[in-house]
Amino acid sequence: MEILESGSVTSPKGFLAAGQHVGIKKQDKDLALIYSQVPAVTAGAFTTNVIQAAPVTWSRQVVQRQQAQAIVVNSGNANACTGTRGDEHAAWMADAAGRRLGVEANQVLVASTGVIGVPLPIEVVLAGIENTAELLADSVAAGLEAAQAIRTTDTMSKHTAVKVQLSTGTVTVGGIAKGSGMIHPNMATMLSFITTDAAINPELLSKALRESTAGSYNMISVDGDTSTNDMVVALANGMAENKPIDSEDEDYQRFFEALHTVNTYLAQQIVRDGEGATKFLEVRVQGARDDESARKLAKSVITSNLVKTAFFGEDANWGRIVAALGYAGVEFAPSEVGIVVESAKGTLNLLRNGEPLEFDEAAAQRILHERDIQIFATVGQGFGKAVAWGCDFSYDYVKINGSYRT
Amino acid sequence: MEILESGSVTSPKGFLAAGQHVGIKKQDKDLALIYSQVPAVTAGAFTTNVIQAAPVTWSRQVVQRQQAQAIVVNSGNANACTGTRGDEHAAWMADAAGRRLGVEANQVLVASTGVIGVPLPIEVVLAGIENTAELLADSVAAGLEAAQAIRTTDTMSKHTAVKVQLSTGTVTVGGIAKGSGMIHPNMATMLSFITTDAAINPELLSKALRESTAGSYNMISVDGDTSTNDMVVALANGMAENKPIDSEDEDYQRFFEALHTVNTYLAQQIVRDGEGATKFLEVRVQGARDDESARKLAKSVITSNLVKTAFFGEDANWGRIVAALGYAGVEFAPSEVGIVVESAKGTLNLLRNGEPLEFDEAAAQRILHERDIQIFATVGQGFGKAVAWGCDFSYDYVKINGSYRT
Repeated sequence: MEILESGSVTSPKGFLAAGQHVGIKKQDKDLALIYSQVPAVTAGAFTTNVIQAAPVTWSRQVVQRQQAQAIVVNSGNANACTGTRGDEHAAWMADAAGRRLGVEANQVLVASTGVIGVPLPIEVVLAGIENTAELLADSVAAGLEAAQAIRTTDTMSKHTAVKVQLSTGTVTVGGIAKGSGMIHPNMATMLSFITTDAAINPELLSKALRESTAGSYNMISVDGDTSTNDMVVALANGMAENKPIDSEDEDYQRFFEALHTVNTYLAQQIVRDGEGATKFLEVRVQGARDDESARKLAKSVITSNLVKTAFFGEDANWGRIVAALGYAGVEFAPSEVGIVVESAKGTLNLLRNGEPLEFDEAAAQRILHERDIQIFATVGQGFGKAVAWGCDFSYDYVKINGSYRT
Repeated sequence: MEILESGSVTSPKGFLAAGQHVGIKKQDKDLALIYSQVPAVTAGAFTTNVIQAAPVTWSRQVVQRQQAQAIVVNSGNANACTGTRGDEHAAWMADAAGRRLGVEANQVLVASTGVIGVPLPIEVVLAGIENTAELLADSVAAGLEAAQAIRTTDTMSKHTAVKVQLSTGTVTVGGIAKGSGMIHPNMATMLSFITTDAAINPELLSKALRESTAGSYNMISVDGDTSTNDMVVALANGMAENKPIDSEDEDYQRFFEALHTVNTYLAQQIVRDGEGATKFLEVRVQGARDDESARKLAKSVITSNLVKTAFFGEDANWGRIVAALGYAGVEFAPSEVGIVVESAKGTLNLLRNGEPLEFDEAAAQRILHERDIQIFATVGQGFGKAVAWGCDFSYDYVKINGSYRT
């Protein structure tokens, strides 16, 4: 597997993209298009929030038909809680993009991100779609411009692509994503758009996307704690001309690994760019009864405000880690718990078999001063394991979120 | 029902208390005793965390026997995750208090709050218990000193008492509490100690305490998200000489209301004193399918970091309220949702039947600038209702929690 420099949605064959400022935001890029030269199969995962934004409802229907050829995305306005007018606007966006690109509206996925409850400036959006379509290109630059245009409070663009050798040729998987307002525990909108030139049947694309999402995007958020607009969608256009993947053979496994590499990278980038984040935290749980229990434990630690503020303060407060394990809703024996914290500067053994260990405060300060921190927790119940990623919780988080709307 | 000025655990007949600095903390009061002149029936509610501090395990056993005569509490150290030594220390605390007071150790409730994972300075604690017992008094001042001694990051003491007329005499219910560290969503230790001179059988005391806790302390936290040390315990010594309450008659109802008034007041005080809090938020949900659904919805809103930071920023970001309702895990129709925000300065109608309403930004600023804010949410599904209390989320929250341990 090869990671492509400056890779993105335009890295796989036959995909064009564009992104520019059309006037939804004051000055930053705010509209992106992704287009496949040929019809593609599509799969998607959407927010589980009871309240779903209009573009989510629209794109869900497109994904149900398993075929799409374009994606239109605006930032600066979520088109959520905008009533029946919002549904019309999402349909109009698909229609405008489709007409311009010679594609049926029901082949166009729509996504929006930004403030909730304010009607889209629809004239601006529709005119912007017309303009942006003219910029579509399959260049590296075009992919990066699309990645820029889907940002909200993100401080950097998130994009990557990997190339993988299958038995009958090479396929490429690329993606762009936007993170958060906030990643934990009430995820603000997370959008991820994946393109690939692999030939794969829609059921297997859907299965691969679902399984990969469970171990990537879902491990930076909490099931059920999703925003009104979250979506991960993938387009596979078959232009690599590999023998179509239609069973879970070795080609499928390689494709899955490529897809999962892209998704894991994008998920980690989202966390690294968490609002106000100063640290990147990785929580590895092992010894749980099963993987599902391990995921609950890992998420409980990574979403704890008290754990997050402790790491911001570079404080080896393992008691908060233990407390978060304890309220995860998973049974385990306190006397089996072990906790280790690690960074490039060394290892801190904090708890073994439920008993606190002595540690050197000076070493702890050195270790916790690093930006990347790993937390290992073991609960001695079985072979279940999981990894979750998160960031710390700083003054700036409060600052950014205290005045987002106005 | 009469609210007693400077009321506390010493307000009911036959209860003595004391609190002082014994040396667990650097300088603040850190040890409290509560003592009933006669044996009392007892009931309690304890943390649901898998990891339970040693004093919780101890006090659970006392409560199972339904009889107790004293409570010993230290602050500055939680005696949690301290292994078998911690269990011994909790037992020694009960033993030391019991010997000094002429009570069996198994009649002494024990509670601790403070840092996790550090062994108690047990010699200091045991000597402190001896000393503190000499200060026991039934005065107003003694009750307030006990309230001070159980504080950790609390900026003020929490205490109250009410007197209520039953069919056969007047009874008094008093209490002291400490809040948190943090109230949402990962509650740091919450302790509440209730005394009453009512004569009541232990099953009804337990029932009343359980039901009252569900509508008071549990509505400022999240079920399952409890610390290792939380407890609410009540002692009823019968010294008011009312006809013992042994059925759910009118006397029971009056007693319940008195108890619930004390618990609700203490719970609200805990929220008002939330770390770094600048606002007091009350969330009232109505129109849910049932009360249980309403409680889930209210808690989801009050525990949302995004809602909390928005109110800190005095931002009428109702989209975050809607999003939090949406991921509460309760079904409802988005088209039925209504949201109103209110303060002493006026009312903001934000959402009706799922559609955003125009509102005056200047009025919104005036209304949200108040300290006390009410949020009304209706979901149009039935007659279930609930109230939850919380606070906003400020820079200071992060500051306080980033350096708690060191």
